[in-house]
Amino acid sequence: MFDFTRVFPQDILPETGRWTGFPQFNFVGGHNDQTFIPVDALKASAAAILDQHGARLATYGLGDGPLGFLGLRKFLSTSLKARAGIAASVDEILLVSGSLQALDLVNQTLLRPGDTVVIEESNYGGVYSRFNRLGVKFVGVPTDEQGMRIDALETVLAALDKAGTRPRLIYTIPTVQNPTGTIMPENRRRGLLAAAKKFDLPIFEDDCYADLTFAGVRPPAIHALDTDGRVIYCGSFSKSVAPALRVGYLVASPEFLARALSYKTDAGSGALEQMILADFCSHAFDTHVKKLAAHLADKADFICAALDRYFGTSADYLRPAGGIFVWVKLPAAVDTSRLAEIAATKGVAINPGVEWSSADDARRHIRLCFGYGDKAMIDQGVRRLAEICQAEFGVPQQIGNKTDPQLM
Amino acid sequence: MFDFTRVFPQDILPETGRWTGFPQFNFVGGHNDQTFIPVDALKASAAAILDQHGARLATYGLGDGPLGFLGLRKFLSTSLKARAGIAASVDEILLVSGSLQALDLVNQTLLRPGDTVVIEESNYGGVYSRFNRLGVKFVGVPTDEQGMRIDALETVLAALDKAGTRPRLIYTIPTVQNPTGTIMPENRRRGLLAAAKKFDLPIFEDDCYADLTFAGVRPPAIHALDTDGRVIYCGSFSKSVAPALRVGYLVASPEFLARALSYKTDAGSGALEQMILADFCSHAFDTHVKKLAAHLADKADFICAALDRYFGTSADYLRPAGGIFVWVKLPAAVDTSRLAEIAATKGVAINPGVEWSSADDARRHIRLCFGYGDKAMIDQGVRRLAEICQAEFGVPQQIGNKTDPQLM
Repeated sequence: MFDFTRVFPQDILPETGRWTGFPQFNFVGGHNDQTFIPVDALKASAAAILDQHGARLATYGLGDGPLGFLGLRKFLSTSLKARAGIAASVDEILLVSGSLQALDLVNQTLLRPGDTVVIEESNYGGVYSRFNRLGVKFVGVPTDEQGMRIDALETVLAALDKAGTRPRLIYTIPTVQNPTGTIMPENRRRGLLAAAKKFDLPIFEDDCYADLTFAGVRPPAIHALDTDGRVIYCGSFSKSVAPALRVGYLVASPEFLARALSYKTDAGSGALEQMILADFCSHAFDTHVKKLAAHLADKADFICAALDRYFGTSADYLRPAGGIFVWVKLPAAVDTSRLAEIAATKGVAINPGVEWSSADDARRHIRLCFGYGDKAMIDQGVRRLAEICQAEFGVPQQIGNKTDPQLM
Repeated sequence: MFDFTRVFPQDILPETGRWTGFPQFNFVGGHNDQTFIPVDALKASAAAILDQHGARLATYGLGDGPLGFLGLRKFLSTSLKARAGIAASVDEILLVSGSLQALDLVNQTLLRPGDTVVIEESNYGGVYSRFNRLGVKFVGVPTDEQGMRIDALETVLAALDKAGTRPRLIYTIPTVQNPTGTIMPENRRRGLLAAAKKFDLPIFEDDCYADLTFAGVRPPAIHALDTDGRVIYCGSFSKSVAPALRVGYLVASPEFLARALSYKTDAGSGALEQMILADFCSHAFDTHVKKLAAHLADKADFICAALDRYFGTSADYLRPAGGIFVWVKLPAAVDTSRLAEIAATKGVAINPGVEWSSADDARRHIRLCFGYGDKAMIDQGVRRLAEICQAEFGVPQQIGNKTDPQLM
């Protein structure tokens, strides 16, 4: 038999592990609640949009060019203005295969090995893995309950400047920060822009959770406050409508998009998903995300209560202001990488902090996603996690053994 | 205003040109016939599959893992066996965002700057541009009406071997070769495998047009004849169902796919398109492609007749054995790059040979796609092209000025 390992390049990436199905208690991944997929509305939208534009599937990009289906770009142009204050024409919106493709395109356009990026100290694990693969260094900025700290950002930028290092960009998730779940207020957004201006840097604003704020309102996007055109913006329908739909968007000047497009080698992102979303969103987006956010807010309360119930004071967290995850700090005795490893063998999947943070206390943190599981899974999963943590690390000292009254 | 050109890396790719809509006479791109998109069947499939699996859109990859929707992999496992003789389990099939993503994944897995690939002398332009970007050298093998010439392949491989160069793979489009439109017969496929075995090389078989043979039959895939596991295979639904659907597939061993998956950083390809295709294909694929191929065969005859009518003996071509393009050789006086440039200004878009071939006479060739246009567009477009060619290069000497009787 031909042995491909003989012809693999030396720097080939490790294998992706075999798929073995979802764990019994799944607290990882950006999955959402199966009961909140608007199946009937998507069916109706599929029928309506195929009637209207189905024949155009015969042409790559539906004949609307490489930026993607015009109908969805029109919806976004209007919706981004109304929801985030962003003024972007349809020529400034590129539809992509999920916000991850937006990340990849911006990285390919701007970053090269050895470059430096400034980023929240705790951030999306997929961003770190991307930087590592690209040979890009990142400098973390401490965060608090309002997201990236601007005083700390200025300190970091000044130190880099003094060292003669010019970062390629500031990468930030200001609205429902991942993993901390915080929302950066408007004054801090203005501070971030001022710091970027002072050091003459571009900003990449990743807003993929921004539609899911529990309060139902959000500050204007940094892009909306930017008068210099230094902000590249991305968003997604994965969190707001359905993760398995791979549709996101990159918002930037036509000149920037013309560069990024040259790295988009896929002959367009899936048009049918764009078409169905365009129809669905035009009449149902706002009401859908309002309902979904309220449901997630309830689940956020529920998982916080479960943490209190089973971990007691051993679990330190901020109640998330939106989204689908909570960032939990455990006592110093706990090595969360080991906790995650053991928990995985017992059917509980969690994200250990070191994969989501470069902070000194990263190894004390875990990220728990509550979008996917129902309340019974959340209750029993957090309970089992507490039991595993107690058995291995001695904390929490006591575990309340009553399941949530809501479940009885 | 922030000037991004100041922060672009030195090796940034050139801008992608602004979209200006389709040309009046469009003979480029893999577009298909708008009248042959099965809109009603896709609508019915969307409704049926959303009823059945819609809620699963809440999870990335539908909970079927990174290989993609199991329903579509099951269809492919059965269909590839029946249509191409390929025995592949669902674990050997990776659903990707069009066969272009399959190309990118295989390239990223196997190729590094300075590597050499052996390829048909005339081939898909997007393959050449990919190799150029990657810094990969390619050596062309002459073709004839049966595709890649095995005697020539052996000469090329022996010469490389003598020079101490070990190619990373043999890349081939055996079934409806792009751009020549030929089908490699089974004995030559076996010869290709024997040559690959002799020089201990893997093969990448790109079969994205294979469902559109005009005779309705096809030889077994090279993958099907391979007893060594040296063939990586890819195919697509873009040509057989709809280009704007971005769904293709990579067929290889689970071990190879586990490597390729590590380069797939998009959290899965669009699931809804996979779902709709799975339902549609399970009952309609064979009848649909039979009808489509018959229609394309008629259009192939029509464009060949138009070439005869307007270019006379100045146009030398093989009638394609399938697919949506014809590869035309013009007299030595014609520089087709210049022809394409002038034609573009007059509303006629064609592919000049140098972008699709490394052969000595590449500049005498053009590729004309006939999938998209109706007969009136084909007739008038070929006529206008002949007029432009005559005005610029003096050939053809005479142009028949009667449009096709079918159109009157």
